[in-house]
Amino acid sequence: MAGTDQSKAAAQPDAAAPVVILVRPQMGENIGAAARAMLNCGLGEMRLVAPRDGWPNPAAEAMASGAVAVLAGAKVYETTAEAVADLNLVLATTARSRDQVKDAYVPREAASVMKAHIAGGHRGGILFGPERAGLENDEVALADAIVHVPLNPAFSSLNLAQAVLLLGYEWYQAGDATPDQSMSGHGEPASVEDREYFLTRLEKELYDGGFLFPETLAPTIRRNLRNLFNRARLTDQDVRTLHGVVSTLLKKEGRSDV
Amino acid sequence: MAGTDQSKAAAQPDAAAPVVILVRPQMGENIGAAARAMLNCGLGEMRLVAPRDGWPNPAAEAMASGAVAVLAGAKVYETTAEAVADLNLVLATTARSRDQVKDAYVPREAASVMKAHIAGGHRGGILFGPERAGLENDEVALADAIVHVPLNPAFSSLNLAQAVLLLGYEWYQAGDATPDQSMSGHGEPASVEDREYFLTRLEKELYDGGFLFPETLAPTIRRNLRNLFNRARLTDQDVRTLHGVVSTLLKKEGRSDV
Repeated sequence: MAGTDQSKAAAQPDAAAPVVILVRPQMGENIGAAARAMLNCGLGEMRLVAPRDGWPNPAAEAMASGAVAVLAGAKVYETTAEAVADLNLVLATTARSRDQVKDAYVPREAASVMKAHIAGGHRGGILFGPERAGLENDEVALADAIVHVPLNPAFSSLNLAQAVLLLGYEWYQAGDATPDQSMSGHGEPASVEDREYFLTRLEKELYDGGFLFPETLAPTIRRNLRNLFNRARLTDQDVRTLHGVVSTLLKKEGRSDV
Repeated sequence: MAGTDQSKAAAQPDAAAPVVILVRPQMGENIGAAARAMLNCGLGEMRLVAPRDGWPNPAAEAMASGAVAVLAGAKVYETTAEAVADLNLVLATTARSRDQVKDAYVPREAASVMKAHIAGGHRGGILFGPERAGLENDEVALADAIVHVPLNPAFSSLNLAQAVLLLGYEWYQAGDATPDQSMSGHGEPASVEDREYFLTRLEKELYDGGFLFPETLAPTIRRNLRNLFNRARLTDQDVRTLHGVVSTLLKKEGRSDV
């Protein structure tokens, strides 16, 4: 989906946001795509543990689609322990179940736990293992808890950047104030008075035309029409449009009957 | 992340799950990656409106990573209206704000609305526009509501497969029963009796060793130790391990003092 607002200043991810640690990533393309997913979600700090093809990696830059600042700031470490040494909450993403007794969160809960942690003035990070093998058991043991993404159990394999995107997405949602449901566009909701004025006019015309018949059914038809239009949550403009529709339909001289 | 359970039967997406409609997709690679994301999320029915490079497309198959059944079942339509004609709830993903007065959902709410709709025995689908331009206004108007993914406003551009993944992810989560927090591994939680037996033993040894001193602070130290170990939610195995740790530390004859 296109959508970046080019008029906005360059993205300034929150410096307190969780660090993304890619452990022994193989494909530069995946590192670049992960950087893009991070920036989508307001995450700015990437750390790389022993990237297979060295660093910097032109293949990563080619895939980063404007998130090159994330790559430019990435630091490289030799071991996972070094990469997380300054953090005090580390979550390890893992798809396989591990024979380690450890708290396991779904991504949404992980974001909530991370948010609370960071709100306390601490720093946190999320570990992502290499493309095929995932994290080693000793790296999982280094973490405070694991994160597992519930997906189709018969086909749950995610690529690296998609895993970063899903964790980042939940992080962003945990701090986002967009209402679950809203109304797009710029219409002003019509007042009940204006709605009623239109509906009363419509009913009068329908009565004159014989539509509200038999009388015993008229109250039901009236309520159905009210509910139909009120479910649409009419705007001022909608009410004006509907008046025009009715006027147009009424003066059907010169038109062929449908 | 590696993780598909190869022992499971081939994925059988729910036939009632929402249809994914890709409108004028350009890159075959994106169609393939979208198919993979769909199968990750238990979505099986893909429809294509006027794919730029025709159909079938070998580039799509190369990127589908095992989700070829989704591609094989994809139907092609000439117009968006034809592609959604049999559905009775259509959501349109859009990143740009539109000057159309329309319900707008975040993905989680969209999944919830779709779930309720499908639970009523109806069929629903989600429209995704072409890679750069997005859906045309008339296609958005065809839909019941729009879905907008809240992301970093300065860098919100998602590729097609990522948009499909996020919508699919929320769909899957809406029907998934994984507890927000659980414990991985196979440990049996220790009984309070066993925990207390260990802690009492530890305290006795610490008292003998002069650690619980001065007496006025001893109750605080005892409580801190209890809280430390109880936060860890010890398993039976953990308690056995800790007994061994204490026994080992006690018999330090022959070792150098640290």
